[in-house]
Amino acid sequence: MAEQQETSVSSTLEQTTNKLEETVLDEDGKPLSKKALKKLEKEREKERAKERAKKERERIELERKAAESYGSENFGKKPLNQSQERTATKRIRISDINGSLNGEVVTIRARVQTSRAKSQIAFFVLRQQFSTIQGVLTVNKDTVSKGFVKFASSIPDESIVDVEGMVAKTEEEIKSTTVTDAELHIKKLYIISETVGRLPFTMDEATRPEDLIQQAETQFNRITLETRLNNRVVDLRVSNPFYLLSITITNQAIFRIQSGVCQLFREFLLSKEFIEIHTPKILGAASEGGASVFSVKYFKVDAYLAQSPQFYKQMCVCSDFDRVFEIAPVFRAENANTHRHMTEFVGLDLEMAFEEHYHEVLEVLDELFVFIFQGLKTRFAAEIETVKRQYNTPDFEFLPKTLRLEYKDAVKLLREKGVEIGDYDDLSTETERILGQLVKEKYNTDFYMLDKFPLEVRPFYTMPDPNNDKYSNSYDFFMRGEEILSGAQRIHDAAFLEERAKVHNIDPPSIQGYLDAFKRGAPPHAGGGIGLERVVMLYLNLGNIRRSSLFPRDPKRLEP
Amino acid sequence: MAEQQETSVSSTLEQTTNKLEETVLDEDGKPLSKKALKKLEKEREKERAKERAKKERERIELERKAAESYGSENFGKKPLNQSQERTATKRIRISDINGSLNGEVVTIRARVQTSRAKSQIAFFVLRQQFSTIQGVLTVNKDTVSKGFVKFASSIPDESIVDVEGMVAKTEEEIKSTTVTDAELHIKKLYIISETVGRLPFTMDEATRPEDLIQQAETQFNRITLETRLNNRVVDLRVSNPFYLLSITITNQAIFRIQSGVCQLFREFLLSKEFIEIHTPKILGAASEGGASVFSVKYFKVDAYLAQSPQFYKQMCVCSDFDRVFEIAPVFRAENANTHRHMTEFVGLDLEMAFEEHYHEVLEVLDELFVFIFQGLKTRFAAEIETVKRQYNTPDFEFLPKTLRLEYKDAVKLLREKGVEIGDYDDLSTETERILGQLVKEKYNTDFYMLDKFPLEVRPFYTMPDPNNDKYSNSYDFFMRGEEILSGAQRIHDAAFLEERAKVHNIDPPSIQGYLDAFKRGAPPHAGGGIGLERVVMLYLNLGNIRRSSLFPRDPKRLEP
Repeated sequence: MAEQQETSVSSTLEQTTNKLEETVLDEDGKPLSKKALKKLEKEREKERAKERAKKERERIELERKAAESYGSENFGKKPLNQSQERTATKRIRISDINGSLNGEVVTIRARVQTSRAKSQIAFFVLRQQFSTIQGVLTVNKDTVSKGFVKFASSIPDESIVDVEGMVAKTEEEIKSTTVTDAELHIKKLYIISETVGRLPFTMDEATRPEDLIQQAETQFNRITLETRLNNRVVDLRVSNPFYLLSITITNQAIFRIQSGVCQLFREFLLSKEFIEIHTPKILGAASEGGASVFSVKYFKVDAYLAQSPQFYKQMCVCSDFDRVFEIAPVFRAENANTHRHMTEFVGLDLEMAFEEHYHEVLEVLDELFVFIFQGLKTRFAAEIETVKRQYNTPDFEFLPKTLRLEYKDAVKLLREKGVEIGDYDDLSTETERILGQLVKEKYNTDFYMLDKFPLEVRPFYTMPDPNNDKYSNSYDFFMRGEEILSGAQRIHDAAFLEERAKVHNIDPPSIQGYLDAFKRGAPPHAGGGIGLERVVMLYLNLGNIRRSSLFPRDPKRLEP
Repeated sequence: MAEQQETSVSSTLEQTTNKLEETVLDEDGKPLSKKALKKLEKEREKERAKERAKKERERIELERKAAESYGSENFGKKPLNQSQERTATKRIRISDINGSLNGEVVTIRARVQTSRAKSQIAFFVLRQQFSTIQGVLTVNKDTVSKGFVKFASSIPDESIVDVEGMVAKTEEEIKSTTVTDAELHIKKLYIISETVGRLPFTMDEATRPEDLIQQAETQFNRITLETRLNNRVVDLRVSNPFYLLSITITNQAIFRIQSGVCQLFREFLLSKEFIEIHTPKILGAASEGGASVFSVKYFKVDAYLAQSPQFYKQMCVCSDFDRVFEIAPVFRAENANTHRHMTEFVGLDLEMAFEEHYHEVLEVLDELFVFIFQGLKTRFAAEIETVKRQYNTPDFEFLPKTLRLEYKDAVKLLREKGVEIGDYDDLSTETERILGQLVKEKYNTDFYMLDKFPLEVRPFYTMPDPNNDKYSNSYDFFMRGEEILSGAQRIHDAAFLEERAKVHNIDPPSIQGYLDAFKRGAPPHAGGGIGLERVVMLYLNLGNIRRSSLFPRDPKRLEP
């Protein structure tokens, strides 16, 4: 059975490869224009719709006929699960099936990823998350009627089914599924939940490697990020076992890695005696002084969404919690439509009291990131490998002790390369990128800390450098040349803080609660805020932050 | 030295106790009216203010004089820490000091909780979070001048200081600090951060046990919750080692327990193959159909704050994440001014696909809560003990396998006790409380699940009971008679879901993205949402949810 299937897989592959090289020509033998291609695509779509309608009619007819033939109890559509009963049927995970179970009858619940039928036989790829197995259904005289096979092969892709079948060890390796030494000989098959209407795109289209799409721009109907995000529920589960023999479940992997970053972040900080806090997101005043806050109608008054937990995490340090962290949404009303800005993202924030010098905090942050990067490498190796296949991600290089560069030295480096930048200018996105390249060349790391930023480009609560008040005790961290953390030693003296607020044109009464916190004795402290989605995007080289957010929000997107 | 201090501690205690019994009498020997008491308190406050101003003048004079006498290098106010230097001085934690370090010279950074001086000697209680030690400073001929003692004892309470001193084992047990067999003989003392102005209340006032306040209502200037919350930064660190010999650091303990609940929640779920998700809080539509959503100005359109991650966690299940959880803020625009409602709270949400019956999910939830309750008992025993001292918390009773009561049986129980309730009525807060008592009497548990709620009182996406569509596959969990979790099997069929939405007067196009998710094949699933602050409030018997929120938000409170 396996052999026969193998042939089919190869021929499918060939077709795909041919399609790759196919350029659509017009009547004169010239490649079609983009517009003409679009028109052609529309026509094809119409045809496909007709085809689908026809298939649907056929299927209904088949179901009717099938029910009349033998073995009709072995297939069909189950009534809506309302928890009618508990049979305690033991189900097995696809990932636990292999050749050693040869001959055993098992039950699985899975999605029908694809199906193909010839009159007497049908092949399926059945999927659970990122595990797939080949299912085979063959007509026999007692239990599997032709009607069963037709019914089964007409089930729309991505429907969920319960399958009972016998595990059969295969002679040859199956290259098209994750289970490579066994297939399932199907005995019973029931629909649990059926796909309605057309899928927004095929799994095949959704997981095409980025570079291939770029190479062959006209041949492919590229699935835009826009389309993906509009249909995020399907996009998030995409998997394509046929494409170039690679098994990519990119989105499932990306969000497992995202979950992993949070887990590693907390694991490290809890081990260092941090405690987790939850601070309010609705604020009475647009506190941090920026214009970029969303306003909320709060009963009869106006309120604002927190741009960061900055003030509150500092107040917790003043309340003697000493070391605190928070993982929570952060809201920015910036009309920035870039690859790295969202209006809502997840902040990994931390703040800690130190004894003598804010570099104590930098050392904790250094250890934290090395712990996260190491942890990802060891615990999420398979997921990283998966993402690499679609995004050609180069390995993420980092040093066991993170490079700490001073701002003035970075300026020097940039000038040596001909970049014009003033001593106290802020870095532009482009300059950051160039600096990242220079650092990579010189130190072979994709991760570094930039310390001692000019005071003027930092928020009012930033502690000035004791030796030169043009600089400050503040830092940014970079991954692959883009900022992922911003932090500083904070001013812990109420009078000085008030003075600095005034310099930044912030009216002290508008931040009275914050200022008061420092009148009750405050320890020297420093901290930082990390953008979760940026860390994931840059670690995996995804190119756009929306790819590392389940349901991204930007100035133009509020759905789904 | 210890002995001498012990006496002083006792006499302080006596004074406190006397004050307890003291009733202020007017000229006729009758107790003063509340109004008169208030007036009296105001006058006293004026006197105290005068006193403080006088002390401040004296202190400045002292500093000047002291600087002129010998040993002036051993004390003073340090310049603002701007990370000028790193001496790498080794500091020790108070909790690590004990008699075995007798004779060793150590450095600590701590708050001055209290200080008292007689001409030649001063006593301090020095505090780090919930650890305290007695500090003693005695005049000698070489290093400690009278000026030093006067300077040190004039430092305002709650200021932060660096202290160098010699550990001295004490003969008698010190009952007023957490370090009971050693004190610190101070050699050097420097102010790191000084309290400015008057503290909003004393640590003593803030940690008085609740029942004592109730017993003796007129004698005490009760610190209202209002006052505490207005001065939350100080309130959060309160500790009172003198009061009734109990050492209470209630708020430090409450929020360590809160952090613990999150930690245990995640630990359990990650071990059960859940993954952590982050879903958007700004939504394009007021989706769940309630009126109780906050609206946000989102550039040129209106948006809404998520009332729960309900739709999104379900969509993640439809995206094959199978088992997901989220810890994130939840927003409710309900004008409810009760002890258990807030407009913003932390939701512990989870959702999972099941195979046959939603009770599979109830079993996971059962295990989860038992894991959390057990974990709190073992890992946070000291913190729980601490809270008990202030709130007289009875032990939290729970069963190894949680009681699962059906709604109709609960109705029966209530009717037997004379409570009037219709078969399909919802439970009122009061009925919940009575039911909690009945369950406690009958089953000896403070925690139980109520299953099979009437369909009509649940949200539109709730799956009806297969046998009686007046009921549903939905449940609430209760702690000490109050609801802490609400959940259900959800409808996973798009057409049926749409039908139920219409019954609830929800316009299907307004929730199109959600409905569409179920058209792409959706597994049967169930889940629940837990209110973090409610769990903490009820576990610890705090009586008001604001006590388990760092910076609570209610219809009347947006500050601090």
